[in-house]
This record gives sequence, C-alpha cells and structure tokens, in this order.
Amino acid sequence: MPKISHKGQQMPESPIRKLVPYADIAKKKGHKVYHLNIGQPDIKTPEVAMNSIKNLDIKVLEYSHSAGFESYRTKLSQYYKTHGLPVDVADIIITTGGSEALLFAMGTTMDQGDEIIIPEPFYANYNGFSTASGVKVVPVISTIDTGFALPPIADFEKLITPKTKAILICNPGNPTGYLYSKDEMEQLAALVKKHDLFLIADEVYREFTYDGDPHYSVMNLPGLEQHAIMIDSVSKRYSMCGARIGCIVSKNKEVMAAAMKFAQARLSPPTFAQIASEAALDTPQSYFNEVISEYRDRRDTLIAELQKIDGVKVATPKGAFYCIAQLPIDNADNFAQWLLESYDLNQETVMVAPAAGFYSTPNVGLNEVRIAYVLKKEDLIRSVQILKAALETYNKK
Amino acid sequence: MPKISHKGQQMPESPIRKLVPYADIAKKKGHKVYHLNIGQPDIKTPEVAMNSIKNLDIKVLEYSHSAGFESYRTKLSQYYKTHGLPVDVADIIITTGGSEALLFAMGTTMDQGDEIIIPEPFYANYNGFSTASGVKVVPVISTIDTGFALPPIADFEKLITPKTKAILICNPGNPTGYLYSKDEMEQLAALVKKHDLFLIADEVYREFTYDGDPHYSVMNLPGLEQHAIMIDSVSKRYSMCGARIGCIVSKNKEVMAAAMKFAQARLSPPTFAQIASEAALDTPQSYFNEVISEYRDRRDTLIAELQKIDGVKVATPKGAFYCIAQLPIDNADNFAQWLLESYDLNQETVMVAPAAGFYSTPNVGLNEVRIAYVLKKEDLIRSVQILKAALETYNKK
Repeated sequence: MPKISHKGQQMPESPIRKLVPYADIAKKKGHKVYHLNIGQPDIKTPEVAMNSIKNLDIKVLEYSHSAGFESYRTKLSQYYKTHGLPVDVADIIITTGGSEALLFAMGTTMDQGDEIIIPEPFYANYNGFSTASGVKVVPVISTIDTGFALPPIADFEKLITPKTKAILICNPGNPTGYLYSKDEMEQLAALVKKHDLFLIADEVYREFTYDGDPHYSVMNLPGLEQHAIMIDSVSKRYSMCGARIGCIVSKNKEVMAAAMKFAQARLSPPTFAQIASEAALDTPQSYFNEVISEYRDRRDTLIAELQKIDGVKVATPKGAFYCIAQLPIDNADNFAQWLLESYDLNQETVMVAPAAGFYSTPNVGLNEVRIAYVLKKEDLIRSVQILKAALETYNKK
Repeated sequence: MPKISHKGQQMPESPIRKLVPYADIAKKKGHKVYHLNIGQPDIKTPEVAMNSIKNLDIKVLEYSHSAGFESYRTKLSQYYKTHGLPVDVADIIITTGGSEALLFAMGTTMDQGDEIIIPEPFYANYNGFSTASGVKVVPVISTIDTGFALPPIADFEKLITPKTKAILICNPGNPTGYLYSKDEMEQLAALVKKHDLFLIADEVYREFTYDGDPHYSVMNLPGLEQHAIMIDSVSKRYSMCGARIGCIVSKNKEVMAAAMKFAQARLSPPTFAQIASEAALDTPQSYFNEVISEYRDRRDTLIAELQKIDGVKVATPKGAFYCIAQLPIDNADNFAQWLLESYDLNQETVMVAPAAGFYSTPNVGLNEVRIAYVLKKEDLIRSVQILKAALETYNKK
C-alpha cells in the first residue's frame, strides 16, 4: 500500500473538529447546544446579493477571467477607494475565499522551509495553509494581559532569520478581536522595511469595529507598497461564508504576476458567487449600520455577562466577532469536551473552541477558550449562564 | 523590495495565455476569431441546474460541510454506482473544481521533490499544480503515430526512481482525446502495484466517448483500491465550468483523511454551485444523448475536414472534445501568433493552442496544435477552411 505524504500526515486538524463527535453525543441525548465555537454568522445575507442569483438569466455557466470578472474587480476597486484604500483594478485578483488568497500569498512569497512570523493566538487555519505550502510558522506571543496588543517589535526581531520572508497579521483579529492602532501598524511597517519582508494583512473583518476607532489597512501605510499584501473576503462582510469569494490585493507587480499564474492554473473563481458578490457591493449602508449595531450589542452583552463570573478574565474585543476568555480551569480541551459529553443545565449546554488550537507554541493558552458572538443576545445571555453553572459543577468535581 | 518565491517565479504560464494579446490585436482590427483554443463548451447548462439556483430560498449563505453537502455526496455516490463505479459516500470529498481535487491529490501523496510520471502531451495545468506543490513532473512521451496510446510500460519503468510517488493519467485525454483500453488500464494497475505507487486518474471527460468503446475507470480496477485516486468535475459533464465543483474520490482511508484536512483548512466548496451540481444530477438522459451526438458530429466533421488538408496529420480522438493535429509547419507557436497578428481570410481568423505547451519535454510537439471542438459544426468547417488557406499563405512566405 503506497504511503501518503509527510505533508498529508502533518496537516493539522481544526481545533474545533475534534469536538464535533462530542457535540453529536450531546445532540443525541436531546440536549440543545449553543454554538459559541463557530464563525458562521446568523446575520441575513443582503437581499440584493441573493436576488442577483435568483434573477440570473444565463444559458451557459462559463468560466470567468482567472482574476475574476472585470466588472466585479472594477466595482470592488471603487468600494476600496470609497473606504479610503488606494486599490486599483490591477491590484486585485479575485480568489475562492480568503482561504485561497492566503494560499496564493504564501505560494507567491515563500518556498519550502521559509518562515512566516505570526502573532499568536491566530486563526488556526494559518497552520493548515502553512503546512500545505511547506512554510514554517514562527509564533510571537501576544497575551490576554495586554488585550492581545501587538507584541514588542524586539520580540519579532529575535525571531527573524535569513529564512523569514513575511509577517502575517489578522486585523481586526480572529480569535482575539484586537484592532491594531496606527502606531502599531507603523511599527510593523518599519520592521518589514528594515528586514525586507512582506507584510500580509488578513483584513476580512475590516468593517466590524465597535468603538469608533478607525481601522488602519496595510494598504494605507506610506512607502509600504512593495511589501504589503492584503487578504480580503465577502464571507463576513455580507454574511456570505458559503460564497467562497475573496481576493488578494497588492501594489507589488511581481507578487501579482506570480499570484496570477497560481490563479490561471485553477482557471477561475466560482461564477455564481462572483455575481452575488458584485451585487452585494450595492448593499445599502443601513444594512451595515444594523449589523454593526447588532454585533456591538452582542459584544457588550457577552463581555458584561462573562465578567460577572468569578475567575473569568476576558479581553474586550474592539472588532471582529470573537473574544478570548480565560477560565478558572486547567485545561480547556477537557472542559469543552466535558461540557458536551457530560454536562447539561436543563438539557442545554454550550460548545466553545479551546484556545490552545489558536496558539502554535505548545502549552500556551490551555485555560483559554474562543467565544464567537454570532448568536442572538438572549442566546448569548443563556449561554453564559450555562457556562457559569458548568464551571461551578466542573470545579467541584 | 522583498523578493517573491522561487516557486512564484517558476509557476508556468498557460500556453494559451501567451496568445491572448495577439487575439486582442485581431479583434481590434475587427477580425472575427474562431476560438479553437479553449475548453469552454458552448453547450447549454441543464435547466434543472440553473433553476435550482433561481428558485433558491435561503436567508444566510452559509458554509457547507468541508467535504461538501452530505445530500450532494449521497446523490453523487448513487450517480457513480448507476454508472458502474463502486463509489461510496465516504470515498468522496467535494472540491472547488477538478483543479482543487488535483491539488489535494498531489498534496496528499507527494512532498517537495517527489516525482510524478505523466504521459505527455498532458493538460498544461498539471505543470502549475505540480510547481505549486513542489512536485517534479517526469513526462513519458506518447506519440501521434500511435494515436497517443499508452506508452510502453518499459518506458514508465525506466523513469521510476525512489522519489516517484504517483502516475497521473487523463482519461479520456485532454489534449489527445485518447481513451485508454481495459488492457492499458490493467497494465497501469500492475505497474503501480509492482512499484507501490498511486494511480491518479483525471476522468472529468468520462461521459464523452464516441465510438461505443467503454470507459474504464480507475475505480473499476480490482485490487487497486489502495492505489487509485479519481479526479472528477461537473465542468464538462453539465457544461458548468463556472461552477467550480469537482471531487476527489478514493477508497484509501489515509488518502481521504489527509485530503479532508486540506479540505477543512479552506473551510468549504462553494455553496451555490454545490446546490446547482446536486440538481444537475437529475439531468435527463436525453440531454446527454443530444450532447454526445452533437460532439460526435463535430468530431467527425473536424477530423474529416482536417484530413483534407495536405500535410496535416491528426489522431482521431475517441473521447473528450480535443484533438492534436500535426501541421506542415516548423513552429506552431509562431504560426498561432501569426494567425492572430498578421492573417485573415475575409476578416476572419482562428486561434489554436500550440501543443508544445502540453509537453514537458523541450522541443517536442513543436509542429502540433490542440484543437477543441466546442464550436458549432458550421463554425468548425469555416475554421478549417481558414486554417487551410492560412497554411498555404504561411508556407509561401
């Protein structure tokens, strides 16, 4: 029997997937499970996007241009400009989700054995894309005590080797909800210029900020044009996770020419979803106002409720729709499993994502969980009640 | 300025893309260009697939399961069984096109520096996926003189090294149209068993065979269950190239477990297109009868017309919708460019794909072109008239 590749063996499993069989156990018992573990919003997709598909009148579902429909790229460039980002049509390649944009960014900038520095905790799939690309993730720790602010630049510099090719940030952050300040972005810019690295910024949560603090895009850093690569997606902005439409954006012509060759090899991004994504650009501002207001409300509720629990520490997220909470337990993996397998409060329980899966350094964040506030306010309140009661029972065991 | 990766530099350009600027020149002159160069069929997508999208009533466009909707996988397994392929639901992961299935197959079976043997001429994007995966393509030449039949097994064996992990075939073949016989498939099966290799079969043109010869799937080779990986796609079967839905199929549990981790990292295949692809499974047999009859007619017309030209040699394709034609010229790259840039017959010209781009060995197939018969019969006839007149003019130069 032929052996699979080392890469195939090393591909990481999602930190959430491990819990799915236990969620199934809870559901088989008839328990209601509140899913605090996932990033699938319950927010409605804009009607203008869904209607564009319902009203479609094409006879042949053809390939699009490998860089995506030109009409979509043109309109997307206008969207960015309206939002203060100097992005031209030529700076955009439409991808199959932010996922493919990350794969293109890694493939374009890094070879087997090269290193990418990522502040942790970070979006767990960065590990998967790195393994698939043969790239080594070098984590730099950010902590709950600073609210997951940018680690000191000196911490990055200690980790830079001749193999280091890029720094990757998620801004606002999944799983931290942290929003990098202008000063932090400028520090990063100076660092990548000094060491001639790429700065890859995953900005898929750009529009989700709650305290009036502006979002500083990697595309707005003066003099960083040749270093900056932006990753974007329609998944969260328009609650269109299933579209699988994103883009890679850069002013660096070599990067874009290479990314285009990756894009040509896979022919084109999905046609239906591009049509819907283009239409989504006409979503009225009132939709976003409502959505942001809803998320802000949920965040405020979630954080207030969590802070009422003895021994829980939480970093108030400034953006995205996640927070990291430190719990008065030793091991969140065991606790999360126990919540599903052995616990219920009146036949209800919660599913949380153990945060260790978002750290690359072993044995860090063991007592932390990621909570996504993609549920209605009353469900969040109920979820935290369950969590509180569960912690009491768990710690009496 | 930071440097892009070696991989990014080495990514091959599509052999057709190089000609696009020259096609633009022809179009700017007002010349009509017959596109014999592309694999985008003009056949209508089944209405049942398009209607499934028009009638869609969902509020949130959510992620699907990373392996694809279970309902789709279940129905697809039934489709395969109806067509004599023993494929269970657990053997299927839905991918973003056959492209992603190929990437998953390579990532799952091969590491940086490993080798894959591919009979050439082959689908040019195999080069791109190999480069992206850090895999070395080792070509084994098939020739127009045998109609691009399977090269002798001894030719494969000469190329096998400790780095060889897989053999990749396309059946029926793009760009050759060749359909492997049962005997050839059994020879390949014995070879991969002897050397403990994977046999990856790209069968996206499975349904397009014209002479009553049966298609032998890699999934039908007894005792090859642990070696066989099938690549499939809805692109050609239902003229749904823009859907970007395919799948990777294998009975090898290790392969599927590793492929699943690649699938989880990119979250899910596109939702709209999965819904349309599932609906497409209800396409009536009458649709396929018409389509196959149309392609057979086109093939017969194209081959008959080409054979009337002095000095043209053509291998009659048994399947898919391409053929390789040898022309009485030295260099098809130059000829194809000249056709667009400098030639017209009453303001009309043709675009062909130079076949050298489908060979990995340098300086092979220089006088060959790939012709796709995805145009209406009368357009094919006119195209060959233009080609004939063009060859006369070109050879008088």
